[in-house]
Amino acid sequence: MTVERWERHAEIPLLLLAGAFLVAYAWPVLDRHVDPDVRSWLSIVSWTVWAAFAVDFSVRLTLAENRVKYALQHWYDVALIALPLLRPLRLLRLLALLRLLNRTAAGSLVGRVTTYVTGVAVMSIGLGAIAVLDVEQDHAGANITTFGDALWWATTTVTTVGYGDRYPVTTPGRFIAVVLMLVGIAVVGTVTGSVAAWLVTNVKREEQTPQPATETTL
Amino acid sequence: MTVERWERHAEIPLLLLAGAFLVAYAWPVLDRHVDPDVRSWLSIVSWTVWAAFAVDFSVRLTLAENRVKYALQHWYDVALIALPLLRPLRLLRLLALLRLLNRTAAGSLVGRVTTYVTGVAVMSIGLGAIAVLDVEQDHAGANITTFGDALWWATTTVTTVGYGDRYPVTTPGRFIAVVLMLVGIAVVGTVTGSVAAWLVTNVKREEQTPQPATETTL
Amino acid sequence: MTVERWERHAEIPLLLLAGAFLVAYAWPVLDRHVDPDVRSWLSIVSWTVWAAFAVDFSVRLTLAENRVKYALQHWYDVALIALPLLRPLRLLRLLALLRLLNRTAAGSLVGRVTTYVTGVAVMSIGLGAIAVLDVEQDHAGANITTFGDALWWATTTVTTVGYGDRYPVTTPGRFIAVVLMLVGIAVVGTVTGSVAAWLVTNVKREEQTPQPATETTL
Amino acid sequence: MTVERWERHAEIPLLLLAGAFLVAYAWPVLDRHVDPDVRSWLSIVSWTVWAAFAVDFSVRLTLAENRVKYALQHWYDVALIALPLLRPLRLLRLLALLRLLNRTAAGSLVGRVTTYVTGVAVMSIGLGAIAVLDVEQDHAGANITTFGDALWWATTTVTTVGYGDRYPVTTPGRFIAVVLMLVGIAVVGTVTGSVAAWLVTNVKREEQTPQPATETTL
Repeated sequence: MTVERWERHAEIPLLLLAGAFLVAYAWPVLDRHVDPDVRSWLSIVSWTVWAAFAVDFSVRLTLAENRVKYALQHWYDVALIALPLLRPLRLLRLLALLRLLNRTAAGSLVGRVTTYVTGVAVMSIGLGAIAVLDVEQDHAGANITTFGDALWWATTTVTTVGYGDRYPVTTPGRFIAVVLMLVGIAVVGTVTGSVAAWLVTNVKREEQTPQPATETTL
Repeated sequence: MTVERWERHAEIPLLLLAGAFLVAYAWPVLDRHVDPDVRSWLSIVSWTVWAAFAVDFSVRLTLAENRVKYALQHWYDVALIALPLLRPLRLLRLLALLRLLNRTAAGSLVGRVTTYVTGVAVMSIGLGAIAVLDVEQDHAGANITTFGDALWWATTTVTTVGYGDRYPVTTPGRFIAVVLMLVGIAVVGTVTGSVAAWLVTNVKREEQTPQPATETTL
Repeated sequence: MTVERWERHAEIPLLLLAGAFLVAYAWPVLDRHVDPDVRSWLSIVSWTVWAAFAVDFSVRLTLAENRVKYALQHWYDVALIALPLLRPLRLLRLLALLRLLNRTAAGSLVGRVTTYVTGVAVMSIGLGAIAVLDVEQDHAGANITTFGDALWWATTTVTTVGYGDRYPVTTPGRFIAVVLMLVGIAVVGTVTGSVAAWLVTNVKREEQTPQPATETTL
Repeated sequence: MTVERWERHAEIPLLLLAGAFLVAYAWPVLDRHVDPDVRSWLSIVSWTVWAAFAVDFSVRLTLAENRVKYALQHWYDVALIALPLLRPLRLLRLLALLRLLNRTAAGSLVGRVTTYVTGVAVMSIGLGAIAVLDVEQDHAGANITTFGDALWWATTTVTTVGYGDRYPVTTPGRFIAVVLMLVGIAVVGTVTGSVAAWLVTNVKREEQTPQPATETTL
């Protein structure tokens, strides 16, 4: 059995597990007066997902031709399995959800890139909001204390507008902010790059059609 | 009769209706001590415009070859007719004004794109300012309470500068802000993309003319 | 005599006049306890420059083949002569200084564009700081009250960082801010566009050289 | 002996000296209760590095064919040797560390540019944070007083998000901020430019393969 075949078979179960983990992570963050029993169950779900990811990675590592190279190439898998105690890092498991975006196969190159980046941006805003709320809401002096505020802050960060009416004050919160800023630069870069590519391609086409000279002045 | 023919005939009346709606929407927002009689009249104008848009869409749907496909492609028309009670959503009617921009047919590709995006940006700032004033000005703790402030805030948002001296505090206000941020990213992207396309096209032209080597160093 | 010939001869004197105007405008803004006598002299200089610009434009209009078209094309000249009483608008006279940048003839296209945009950015920051200080410093509740603050604010605005520790509170100040934001978008756009154009040109060159396939993955 | 040969031999020692200087500069900034003896030693290290850089530049100047031209081309070397008393300017010595980045020779053009810009960004954030902490932390009314705050501020500046929860209030601090903003514009520009270049190159390739017409709509 090859790594590729295992990955193809494991894709759907891992997606469902990532979804289950998202629920288990987000629920106690959004509803802070959650029943202790429910909280215990959610914790079990979370650790089960971790175990499943660990098993999946072990199998892939076993099947790989060059194991050291494979582990280095998938360092984020290593990190998320080796560091389960760092709460915000657990969200890395949700990177599995990115595979959903890989299924957007149709359309032109620009279309696919745009779909992918939009998906990453929307997911980053949602997950970033939950994660920042998780680390900020119990901190004295924090100004991100509701999910609405967290979503708003995440959006102003990804668009690089940055009003500064809300901002993280804890160190984990600031790390989450840095991730969102990087996503934001990627989003702005892709939008701009797509427009540029579209214009370059079409200006050329326009010039090649026999027409009264269209001198493109700035 | 085809959809295209109906659209061509309905274009001017719809533009005028959108203009009338803009007046009916903006007046009570900008002049809060408007006479109750006038307010009633403006409300009638607003609902008449809604009815006219509903009739227009029904006709287009009837004329369309594949009605389900047409409705999905024009989901914003569906939304603005189905949700007339959500005040800020009513502004979607003003998207009809965008057709004005489609008439800028002359000039090169870069020129047309620039005109279109500038038009969208200016309209977004104006309409966004009115809409945000509408939802914010009566809210306790709001800091956007005059039309001047609203225009200033909308401009700092579209340019992605985001000083944060003014910012929306209500949920509808934040949704309007998100729309303006997206417009802003599109504007910045188009300006950048146009410069890039212009440079790529002209650097190539420069290189093809027999000249002492112009090594373009960064 | 043609318009072009007049413009070539008038260029140096107009540059010197614009420089004199800059001194006459900036001096009382930066040194608020300026001697009344000096202030009168500076006012005379300012009005003399206005008169000289008016004469220059009249001559050019007289020499032009199609006067209406010429006036429309040079609407900013019309504005700055017709509206001398609007203090901040007077700074439009300094657009004459932009002609200095037109003299940077050497180098590649990307180099020339970069030089031009850098020049516009630096001049905008300097002039914007003086102008905003002029309109803000006597206003109650203003937070831009020293030239250092004004320069700092202008820089954060042109780079679209927008901390929001300083921001204009008067309407003329906000108009100056909008101009600086537009310059900022142009600057960012040109930097980005230059990088993109440079990469596109050189990636193509790299691909044309016979080499083991350089698949440019993102 | 040629300049190039000297530079090749001097590279490693200068890198080590720059590293030693970084330690000598950063230590008393980050640990303000440093032992006076240690402080003296660090000061000696700092001046020794300065002397070594001065010797290196003198040798290179002696070996250069056209000494005036060489000095003008390497004005930053002149500045950092001539102005050792301006504390923040001393950080210019760390530009020597940039040579580390020049060693990233492998990979495609876009890959190399991205590596270079990422390296510059990370180094700028680190060094900018140390430098701004150095000039701000003893100033009354400053809000950047810990290394964590300084790093956070530098990151929000380079990404041009600019929340404004932290900002420099001293003149040297603001100059450091301007440098970081310029780095930020370069970073955003390169990310965007790389995306654009990648899309332009690949859209063209896609079009050249015989395929049902892929009309790239925006």
